[in-house]
Amino acid sequence: MVSALRSASIAVRGASTSRVAGPRALSTASTAPASTSQASSSAASTSRPRVIFSGIQPTGIPHLGNYLGALRNWVDLQNASRDTSDELYFSIVGYHAITMPQNPSRLRTERSEMMATLLAIGLDPQRCTIFHQDHVAEHTELAWILNCLASFGKLHRMTTWKAKLATARNVSDSTDVDDKDLSLGLFAYPVLQAADILLYKATHVPVGEDQIQHLELSRDLADVYNRRFKRTFPLPAHIITPTKRVLSLRDPTSKMSKSAPDANSRILLTDTPEEVRRKVRKAVTDAEVKLSYQPDQRPGVSNLLAILAALKSQTAPGTVEMENAGPEEWAERLNQEISESGASLGQHLKATLTDAVVETLRPIQAELERLRKDPGYLTEMEQLGKQKAQTVARRTMSQVRKSIGLE
Amino acid sequence: MVSALRSASIAVRGASTSRVAGPRALSTASTAPASTSQASSSAASTSRPRVIFSGIQPTGIPHLGNYLGALRNWVDLQNASRDTSDELYFSIVGYHAITMPQNPSRLRTERSEMMATLLAIGLDPQRCTIFHQDHVAEHTELAWILNCLASFGKLHRMTTWKAKLATARNVSDSTDVDDKDLSLGLFAYPVLQAADILLYKATHVPVGEDQIQHLELSRDLADVYNRRFKRTFPLPAHIITPTKRVLSLRDPTSKMSKSAPDANSRILLTDTPEEVRRKVRKAVTDAEVKLSYQPDQRPGVSNLLAILAALKSQTAPGTVEMENAGPEEWAERLNQEISESGASLGQHLKATLTDAVVETLRPIQAELERLRKDPGYLTEMEQLGKQKAQTVARRTMSQVRKSIGLE
Repeated sequence: MVSALRSASIAVRGASTSRVAGPRALSTASTAPASTSQASSSAASTSRPRVIFSGIQPTGIPHLGNYLGALRNWVDLQNASRDTSDELYFSIVGYHAITMPQNPSRLRTERSEMMATLLAIGLDPQRCTIFHQDHVAEHTELAWILNCLASFGKLHRMTTWKAKLATARNVSDSTDVDDKDLSLGLFAYPVLQAADILLYKATHVPVGEDQIQHLELSRDLADVYNRRFKRTFPLPAHIITPTKRVLSLRDPTSKMSKSAPDANSRILLTDTPEEVRRKVRKAVTDAEVKLSYQPDQRPGVSNLLAILAALKSQTAPGTVEMENAGPEEWAERLNQEISESGASLGQHLKATLTDAVVETLRPIQAELERLRKDPGYLTEMEQLGKQKAQTVARRTMSQVRKSIGLE
Repeated sequence: MVSALRSASIAVRGASTSRVAGPRALSTASTAPASTSQASSSAASTSRPRVIFSGIQPTGIPHLGNYLGALRNWVDLQNASRDTSDELYFSIVGYHAITMPQNPSRLRTERSEMMATLLAIGLDPQRCTIFHQDHVAEHTELAWILNCLASFGKLHRMTTWKAKLATARNVSDSTDVDDKDLSLGLFAYPVLQAADILLYKATHVPVGEDQIQHLELSRDLADVYNRRFKRTFPLPAHIITPTKRVLSLRDPTSKMSKSAPDANSRILLTDTPEEVRRKVRKAVTDAEVKLSYQPDQRPGVSNLLAILAALKSQTAPGTVEMENAGPEEWAERLNQEISESGASLGQHLKATLTDAVVETLRPIQAELERLRKDPGYLTEMEQLGKQKAQTVARRTMSQVRKSIGLE
């Protein structure tokens, strides 16, 4: 898992800074070998260009877990796509966001902030289709059609709506959750997700483990549709992403999460160096003398080492060999440095990590700042994404409507 | 009930024939007083123009039950709208049709046949918005948004999906039906129906009794939306339509239905005079000597009398007093005629009814024939409906998107 993270994340280096020079600069900035960044797929041949779809909810500023676990991988896929010719769709899924109650004005802000963030981390609207799902009503149209093929019973047995309700109710065990207070939207969420994927005839979807059952539903629905009507949709395969579960800084037994009550448990992409320093300083570690990477026995220290390794693997293009070190190697190296300098172990790890985080965030934040001063550019990019997505979505829906007899 | 049918149905007279002279002719053909055809509403003042929405599934040619129970009322509403200034939306609801399995090529045909039928009975695309629901993807977009406000539990307690599954499984008692084989589409049907209504900010909906719980859901969702976001939707009231339950000719204890196995149980709007004669001849009556209108004791005879009265009330504009007779009066009149002529009672009723049906269907069928020869005109009217509906739908959705934070 960790080594996958290392090899894949290298491709992103420099991408977030190169955006400052305009989108075109990106295509020359990526010098990483495609083979290391091209995530392997669970099925289907990798020789044909893939169509890859992924989405993110516009609810809150992404944290380091979102970035290292998903977003940076999108940039990797993009940078590899010049060689792979993969077609990439990255969507800000507003229709999904509203399956939980949202404050409208906050949603409005976060929706465009998420678009800015995607551009700031180095996604290029010319090379990918980066768009607001809710700009393309065809998502809901296809979702309705798939609703009519989706088994109610199968959806009821899914665990994700229970998990979401459990989180919302602050209940630890989702098996205790009944369907009281459940909205139809939350229940139907996986079908909309299937529509997201199938609308672009995606062949591959990078997913986290908790989403695999949803992707299976997408495959099922594609298969049912193809057999009942006309072969229209590829069965989407999941991409084994080099997803590293970044854990909470305050409770390293659970994932870094935007909904955790303690804001010190997560580092946001917009955190200032001072905020980063403070949060890292407060991170839970332990009192052992030496550093070691032992996730089960030492979750706190291991989490910091894993984050450090992940961050470092993208920031030093000239020194692949050394910087591509895993958390075990980072433990050793820091141990060495400490024994030489006599500094405090915990302080040294935290100082090194703080620098690495600040270093990673600096170009992203600079680009966010630039975008904030140029709302016209952002709107233009939103329109570009809308137009690109809509063209494909309408083509698919025209085929679908003909096949099912609505045209 | 029956007298309501009489007074309301009178307004339709001549409407179905006048269409032959082109849409504009309709507006002069309706000479009925508005007050008799303006169905009363369950709430809201009738002094303000109403926005009325109603829909019909494009599954099969309408039968006499659909016509007398719903479609003729649409024409009445249209004819009254010159005085009431009501705004009328009549939709062919393809998205609803696919909640049950459909044969695509049959659906395709029936979709446009339904449009032709609506024009043939006298609806005027210039005065109403007559459109295919599935031409306006905003229906599904609003449905998704309402999904997120709709209580799963409340939908699960609704009886309509059980009733539909019972019919599909040929089970007589819907309480025996569980959610096995239930699709999410059928389950979510009432929310799409709410979206249909709210998308046009309809104030009034003519509904049958079995649909009242769905309209209540629409009111609920409108209310939840208005309170949570911004006052946007009127709470739609139902129109007490002069709906007459037309019963099966073969089993007069149940409704005339397109899904009943015995095709002789229903008269289709496209039946030839010979088919009408045959079906009426096979209709279940009884062996009593005199005719009388006693729905409970004599369902067969009473059904035929009720159909006769309903049909006759629209076909003789010059003789309102006499032709506006109810089924009781028709029983008396036919008894009289029989005693004078000595003819067989059953034969006389059936012959009179056959003539009335054929007389009603003739202008509709002539117009259908004309439309069949002019597919370009039909397409043009479909496009007109689409454009009119889309304009309103997009306006509503723009408001909705702004209110919930997606714009």
